[in-house]
Amino acid sequence: MKLIADNLRITKKDIQEALRLHDPEPVQSLVKKCMEKGAWAIDVNTGPLCKSPEEDMGFFIRAVEGVTDLPLLIDTSNHAAMRAGLEAAKNRVLINGFSLEPRKLEKMLPLAGKYDADIIGFLLYPDSRVPKDEAGRFEIALELFEKAEAAGVSKERIIIDPVVPPLAWENGIVQARAVLNVIRALPDLLGFNVRTICGLSNLTAGAGDKVKKTLMEQSYVAMLAGAGLDYALLDILNRRTVSAARTAGILSKEEIFSWGMVPGV
Amino acid sequence: MKLIADNLRITKKDIQEALRLHDPEPVQSLVKKCMEKGAWAIDVNTGPLCKSPEEDMGFFIRAVEGVTDLPLLIDTSNHAAMRAGLEAAKNRVLINGFSLEPRKLEKMLPLAGKYDADIIGFLLYPDSRVPKDEAGRFEIALELFEKAEAAGVSKERIIIDPVVPPLAWENGIVQARAVLNVIRALPDLLGFNVRTICGLSNLTAGAGDKVKKTLMEQSYVAMLAGAGLDYALLDILNRRTVSAARTAGILSKEEIFSWGMVPGV
Repeated sequence: MKLIADNLRITKKDIQEALRLHDPEPVQSLVKKCMEKGAWAIDVNTGPLCKSPEEDMGFFIRAVEGVTDLPLLIDTSNHAAMRAGLEAAKNRVLINGFSLEPRKLEKMLPLAGKYDADIIGFLLYPDSRVPKDEAGRFEIALELFEKAEAAGVSKERIIIDPVVPPLAWENGIVQARAVLNVIRALPDLLGFNVRTICGLSNLTAGAGDKVKKTLMEQSYVAMLAGAGLDYALLDILNRRTVSAARTAGILSKEEIFSWGMVPGV
Repeated sequence: MKLIADNLRITKKDIQEALRLHDPEPVQSLVKKCMEKGAWAIDVNTGPLCKSPEEDMGFFIRAVEGVTDLPLLIDTSNHAAMRAGLEAAKNRVLINGFSLEPRKLEKMLPLAGKYDADIIGFLLYPDSRVPKDEAGRFEIALELFEKAEAAGVSKERIIIDPVVPPLAWENGIVQARAVLNVIRALPDLLGFNVRTICGLSNLTAGAGDKVKKTLMEQSYVAMLAGAGLDYALLDILNRRTVSAARTAGILSKEEIFSWGMVPGV
């Protein structure tokens, strides 16, 4: 299971300020910390960048690539900003992401073909609602692959995000199990080794006790690994969650074990 | 997932001494600690008690039942000691356990029928070797159920222990995954809701860094819960492993979630 840092986000005050001033330092300092913790890739969550998508996305890509060769997930719902990122990036890029939302199918999905990039597909209805059950998720997954094929994007390019629900939702815990079952079942259902990604922090979104949140993340990320998850998007600076993710990744995949593989805390 | 304390074992010096003196205090003090930590049951691992099985098992049962009403797993390979325990116990008792070993089939399995008790069945060959792969484990499971039926023990009485391997074994990590797959697949294979139990401490048996061992136990117990494990036999005094087991148990089973259900650390 590869670990992707979700730490670089426009929702953070200092990143907003960095963007406003086009000051790369806060961005680069954060990216360096994520690299130290062994991130496999960096999610660059810029938000829509409505005002000047090309210029602002250019700033982010240059800032990040100034300190890392890691793959980047460009995480924006604005296709103009996405295109600008794909044009600007020298590192490997993953498009994060598309769904059955008509605007995304029309404007975002074709970018995967044009730039020959992996693209993350969310299991959401066209109006962005979350499906109620596993059957709903499977139907959406099949439709996402159909749409991708129609757009000339090969199925191996798609990474499915089954959308981890907040436990705070009324049926969040049932949905969290549905996500595990979907991850486990997709390869059989689709007949090839479908890759999957999950954003872990959504599970514990909302106010609450940090210790308890980390406990739930630790157990859930291990269950995700056990279900066969390929990519975990998480707070790479949360030592405990990351240790759990790494050990679960070892248990779910390795053929040979030694204690040297296990991270300290 | 119910948590069973594996803490009361004859391998501990103070428990050996308690047995020698027939002094209930060290046994009772340990059992009380396990109860405080919320154990669902106590595994009473007495060893074979070859010298005076009736008298010595009687001592253990009286000592333990003097301070708890919890279910007891009587954990001995000596059928005379097991019978003595079943005769002496007033609490609910689970027999731990039997296998395809001829002596166990002949002497231990019938006790489940006679005392109308649940009995744990180990997925081991008749010579106590561990099967190499999942197929071997499934064959043994089928044979255990056949033998139970022939002995007049209903299948609902059997709790399967797929035998967690030490990671230190050459192929231990592959076997650890086989155990997860077996737990997940048994109910479908056998056509009813087969219960399963695992002893967690075996995973990290041997010398080594305690922090790393706990990390592996935390992730593996979450994966076990995700696979559908019913009973986890573990060190109930290891706060971190127990927190992981409890949170994973919540994630794997509950229909309604609230943060109040999550243990602190």
